[in-house]
Amino acid sequence: MANKTSSWERLTDLVAAENRTGLIQYIDTLSPSETARAISRVSEETRLHLFDLLTPEDAADVIEDIPEVQAADLVKGLSSDRAAAIMEELDSDVLADVLGEMKGDTSQAILAEMDREEAREVQKFLKYAPDCAGGLMISEFLAYRSDNTIQNVLDDMQANREEYAKYNVQYFYVLDKLGKLSGVLRIHDLLFPARQTSLSQIMIPSPLSISDKAPLSDLEEFFEEHHFFGVPVVDDEQRLVGVVLPLAVEEAINKQKTKNFLNLSGIVGGEEFRTMPLFSRARRRLSWLSINIVLNVIAASVIAMYQDTLAAVITLAIFLPMVSDMSGCSGNQAVAVSMRELALGLVRPGELLWVLAKEVRVGVINGIVLGLLIGLIAFAWKGNPWLGLVIGGALAANTVVAVTLGGILPLVLKRLKLDPALVSSPLLTTVTDMCGFFFVLSFATLLLPKLVGM
Amino acid sequence: MANKTSSWERLTDLVAAENRTGLIQYIDTLSPSETARAISRVSEETRLHLFDLLTPEDAADVIEDIPEVQAADLVKGLSSDRAAAIMEELDSDVLADVLGEMKGDTSQAILAEMDREEAREVQKFLKYAPDCAGGLMISEFLAYRSDNTIQNVLDDMQANREEYAKYNVQYFYVLDKLGKLSGVLRIHDLLFPARQTSLSQIMIPSPLSISDKAPLSDLEEFFEEHHFFGVPVVDDEQRLVGVVLPLAVEEAINKQKTKNFLNLSGIVGGEEFRTMPLFSRARRRLSWLSINIVLNVIAASVIAMYQDTLAAVITLAIFLPMVSDMSGCSGNQAVAVSMRELALGLVRPGELLWVLAKEVRVGVINGIVLGLLIGLIAFAWKGNPWLGLVIGGALAANTVVAVTLGGILPLVLKRLKLDPALVSSPLLTTVTDMCGFFFVLSFATLLLPKLVGM
Repeated sequence: MANKTSSWERLTDLVAAENRTGLIQYIDTLSPSETARAISRVSEETRLHLFDLLTPEDAADVIEDIPEVQAADLVKGLSSDRAAAIMEELDSDVLADVLGEMKGDTSQAILAEMDREEAREVQKFLKYAPDCAGGLMISEFLAYRSDNTIQNVLDDMQANREEYAKYNVQYFYVLDKLGKLSGVLRIHDLLFPARQTSLSQIMIPSPLSISDKAPLSDLEEFFEEHHFFGVPVVDDEQRLVGVVLPLAVEEAINKQKTKNFLNLSGIVGGEEFRTMPLFSRARRRLSWLSINIVLNVIAASVIAMYQDTLAAVITLAIFLPMVSDMSGCSGNQAVAVSMRELALGLVRPGELLWVLAKEVRVGVINGIVLGLLIGLIAFAWKGNPWLGLVIGGALAANTVVAVTLGGILPLVLKRLKLDPALVSSPLLTTVTDMCGFFFVLSFATLLLPKLVGM
Repeated sequence: MANKTSSWERLTDLVAAENRTGLIQYIDTLSPSETARAISRVSEETRLHLFDLLTPEDAADVIEDIPEVQAADLVKGLSSDRAAAIMEELDSDVLADVLGEMKGDTSQAILAEMDREEAREVQKFLKYAPDCAGGLMISEFLAYRSDNTIQNVLDDMQANREEYAKYNVQYFYVLDKLGKLSGVLRIHDLLFPARQTSLSQIMIPSPLSISDKAPLSDLEEFFEEHHFFGVPVVDDEQRLVGVVLPLAVEEAINKQKTKNFLNLSGIVGGEEFRTMPLFSRARRRLSWLSINIVLNVIAASVIAMYQDTLAAVITLAIFLPMVSDMSGCSGNQAVAVSMRELALGLVRPGELLWVLAKEVRVGVINGIVLGLLIGLIAFAWKGNPWLGLVIGGALAANTVVAVTLGGILPLVLKRLKLDPALVSSPLLTTVTDMCGFFFVLSFATLLLPKLVGM
């Protein structure tokens, strides 16, 4: 039966039958991505009914399996006390992420219904940008005052075994009387010394730490440089407020890459799922496309300026899109290499001249090769060597422009504090289209007597 | 001085002066990405001289800071005994990655010069594909026979403190007499029971494990489902061979994303650094561009078929590139959303009809909006409503084609075992160009009397 029925049909049936036990058993058999898929495919109504049937704990398990944007959308649809009950069961970092995806008033309404203590904990996370150390840290870490003995620590661990079992404990942090970070210990360090030894005697003093406002790039550099299993995060008063694990940093970089990839392809705002409402999807895509239409009109106006030449040599119209498209491809290669090298820190936004020198040379070589190729094609196709010269020359010249511009554009945009992933491609295409049309048509105008009457 | 001189000029000076101490001190002040940048910018000669001056240990530190491809390039340039001496100082996983980037005979020559034991260890890693569990695992883990007591474990840990300090120890693995994985323990579990307790009494038996041949997607799913700090890797005989950490999985996914991004932009083979030799960079980019030129010729031949229509209404030439470019953009948005949903497991390669239904609707809405927009522009520009109808109608029709095709293409390519990141974009552009040209010119041919003599 499971083979014939899709997971969301099965889910819909179970919800309709209000079969609570069957539901939980069935969801348990699904992998997280299957759960996400099934939840996203059922009707709005079924989805809300499903979350009414599940206990807050089971609902929280489901929430943890699905992407944050989807989770936020889902929770928004619930009443705020119901939402609060579910949210209280989430880990603090997941909770902050899901709330972060909502509008301020929606998340505040949910927080107001939550347990005071828990809500205050989450507020701490929410005040940070999601990609800075404060936004990426976890509050599940072990810290003890320096006058504790090893025995005190072991007693605490014994007493809170269940809770600590979920922690990724590689280090114990040691605090002074004001809560300031003063030392660090590895778990091994507790195994051997006498149990009455105080932590201050065996700790490594003045450990490295990072500010709660440090951006993702600082964290990336920190873990590149130090192969630590976590870094303590301190506030302006040097008080320990959390720990960032290298996995969280890697995940944040991963997220940023996905956003860049979607932006580069014209999915602006960084997110689209096919389960979002139709008109919202269409509108999001259109917002970017309508800017593109304006840019296209600007580029096409170059063709309009040379209408007489075009009328005289209609064959040119065949080659206009080829020249602009090929140059666009060459330019995008250079954009990709620059974005990559910027991300790896192999090039800095200020090093325009170095990139320029590197790209001009590739542009010239590839321009000559591609120009020869398309020139021969044009010559062979229409039997006129001058046409080959015009088209080949235009593609060669425009390839140099496109490759050079593509190489430096991400650096320039970065210096201007614009997002290269969002702006590079439309800007590059517009300029290379304009130049491509201009080269073909102005070269053709110069050689018009040789081209007419092919 | 450091402000005025770039890091690679400073490095070149120090190497020329053969100032070994100065060199090491200077490199220590650089962050890993600064080191990578400096190394990549000095001349070939300086680079080799630098590696002659450094001790194998210091050279290994530098190697660990730079991207693997770059490291492999660098090591290839050294004599194989010198290379072997440096490689012996690397962590086994970095070592395997660097060797994996080399040709078989180069890496074999280096392995032959290395310490027997070390070389055998690395061979074990090299036999795995880099993205499967065997390729991602580390061999730095702690495992004990089940008849050991807690005291035995503590004695071993005490004796090997220095070495184990680098390990990311969350679990101890317990093996039976044949080396098969039979249990797992958390480090906390050692703290409380009597020290004469044997591991078999306190271990959690039959822990979850993963096969050494499991692909990256299995590992991704494993860590999605289980919030563990590592998973033991077993061979066909259930013997423990390594441990995969979630960080390694996240890094591998990150790498794959970068490769996809570069492939999508026409940087084929997944890598290009500006410090690679000029002709090799030009050639790599050309290999992809020359396929594109052929595809462009095919698309342009549609224009050639309608040369008479074009000669009669030369204005159409202005709009041909606009229609094809806009449709290309719409199609690429759909490609990006499909690639994303495939990666997240929200859609399966078989679900063509579902994606089709979702995308056709967006295509129709956006086609109507964009068609109206460009139709009005064409009408306003040239004063002929029929021209608006032709151009608007063509863009509307072609947007539907592009969005639908863009949505399903990645799924189809995935089913055909082709790489969507590599093939989607050129294929989509060719088809949408052809259809765009066809729609504009065939609609215009139908309405020719209304268009002539604008």
